[in-house]
Amino acid sequence: MNIVALAGGVGGAKLADGLAQALPAENLTIIVNTGDDFEHWGLKVCPDLDTVCYTLAGLANPETGWGRADESWLAFENVSQLGGADWFRIGDRDLGTHLERTRRSRQGDKLSEITRDFCEAWGIAHSILPMSDDPIPTMVHTELGWLPFQEYFVRQRCQPRVSDFEYHNADIATPAPGVLEAIYEADLVVICPSNPWVSIDPILAVPGIRDALSSGKIIAVSPIVGGKALKGPAAKMYVELGIEPSAYAVAEHYVDCLAGMVIDSVDKDDVSRIQALGMTPFVTDTIMTTPADRQRLAEEVLQFGEEMISDKIE
Amino acid sequence: MNIVALAGGVGGAKLADGLAQALPAENLTIIVNTGDDFEHWGLKVCPDLDTVCYTLAGLANPETGWGRADESWLAFENVSQLGGADWFRIGDRDLGTHLERTRRSRQGDKLSEITRDFCEAWGIAHSILPMSDDPIPTMVHTELGWLPFQEYFVRQRCQPRVSDFEYHNADIATPAPGVLEAIYEADLVVICPSNPWVSIDPILAVPGIRDALSSGKIIAVSPIVGGKALKGPAAKMYVELGIEPSAYAVAEHYVDCLAGMVIDSVDKDDVSRIQALGMTPFVTDTIMTTPADRQRLAEEVLQFGEEMISDKIE
Repeated sequence: MNIVALAGGVGGAKLADGLAQALPAENLTIIVNTGDDFEHWGLKVCPDLDTVCYTLAGLANPETGWGRADESWLAFENVSQLGGADWFRIGDRDLGTHLERTRRSRQGDKLSEITRDFCEAWGIAHSILPMSDDPIPTMVHTELGWLPFQEYFVRQRCQPRVSDFEYHNADIATPAPGVLEAIYEADLVVICPSNPWVSIDPILAVPGIRDALSSGKIIAVSPIVGGKALKGPAAKMYVELGIEPSAYAVAEHYVDCLAGMVIDSVDKDDVSRIQALGMTPFVTDTIMTTPADRQRLAEEVLQFGEEMISDKIE
Repeated sequence: MNIVALAGGVGGAKLADGLAQALPAENLTIIVNTGDDFEHWGLKVCPDLDTVCYTLAGLANPETGWGRADESWLAFENVSQLGGADWFRIGDRDLGTHLERTRRSRQGDKLSEITRDFCEAWGIAHSILPMSDDPIPTMVHTELGWLPFQEYFVRQRCQPRVSDFEYHNADIATPAPGVLEAIYEADLVVICPSNPWVSIDPILAVPGIRDALSSGKIIAVSPIVGGKALKGPAAKMYVELGIEPSAYAVAEHYVDCLAGMVIDSVDKDDVSRIQALGMTPFVTDTIMTTPADRQRLAEEVLQFGEEMISDKIE
């Protein structure tokens, strides 16, 4: 089976890593959100892309899930002492990634080319593609007005109430080379447990991607477990948008395209409501604490997807 | 007495530090070579300026004389692994300086303004001025053709034979704010033990600076001791230019402007030749191994300068 995974940051990266453990390189393409990319200290920073790459390369910080393991913060200390912006911390190892990406971007290389070369240097065999080479900054509408994503997420610590999202310039963007091809060739598309509005919807907003996703082959893993997000503001966003956060609410968010929905055992009461949406539910333990959890969940998700597809074909 | 010091990198920074230990902040201005500034990893790097600042702030690496103490190289390792330029190493702490300077330069701040703010942040009371806010890249003519200074100095490790120097765009540059004022108000100008061609001549090439230097008040400390440079390629350059490297040769290099010349005890045989140039020689131990050496030499240089000036006035 050819698999495409759509992923945002930490949660998405964990399942993507599990899929990479479970699948040969030629059978998996990971398409990553770049809506949270921004410029900081004059550098092009791509938080979700780096989290996915670092995780698959075994370079990620196991405590935080983002950033590099064995990291130090000496450049940050100095920038901070010199009066530079200190609301977003960049570690020393991580800094090398942004420096070299920025240099190559300035010389005209595309983000997808740079990412391919970085993955090769880090020994990542599986294909990791940014959703687009064009900037599509996610904007968050809050009680303070429209905020660029990192302003909302890091600087304001997700405090302001959200009311809307915009994927700026999505209408004039195109998918990165290989993205549509991978989706068309995929037998199964897995939406990783990432935030629906600020990790997955930005990917779906790139012209052509949603159309390429034939609804019979898409399954999602819920980022909401027991009414809470494992990481990040997803549950808080549901509440602020007037929706009760639940695995069912995630399924409903994707009602147009989803064929199957993977939810955690604690949410098994949502099964009938999800079935009522016309989706096949699958219940298992979805919390990935160890690398072994990632692989086990990935294998269950793949088996569920395979059975669901063959059921539909029969 | 008001003192101006002209300084390049490591040797110049040491004497500048000694002068800063010996003089109140209001009586010392250090004018620093910026001819070796260049762009690396997309960042504005000012090696001499940083060496002088780090030295005066007590932040310099005591082993190398340049760069930061307690430095790490994690960003460099990553840049190098990703295929970026690895012929010039930038440490993590040091990187913060270049990042914030580059950011401020891009927003339109002048190098002199940025340097003033950085000095304040690092607790440096004495005034450190770049020779100019305009880029004046030193070019080295070698058997390989014209090389930008850092290409010659670091990438080629000073191997190619030199035959000429050019201070590019010096003719259209202006001194940084405060430079000419400090020189006019100075009772004594001290040329620190720095390379004549690539540290001091670039300063003297900035329009207005040489004219402001009245010849009665300038003394130099020889960077050549016993026919050798304590650091860097000065002695090698003398040989390649067909001149025997010596304290006398340094005096002759500055024959147009120098009133006094400080040479090392091992070079005391040069005294009569230096006197024949019309200069007052002063012989002492000029090698600065410890911070105490710096202060001792600075105090001797100041006393010599003071006596020389009062002799001339009488």
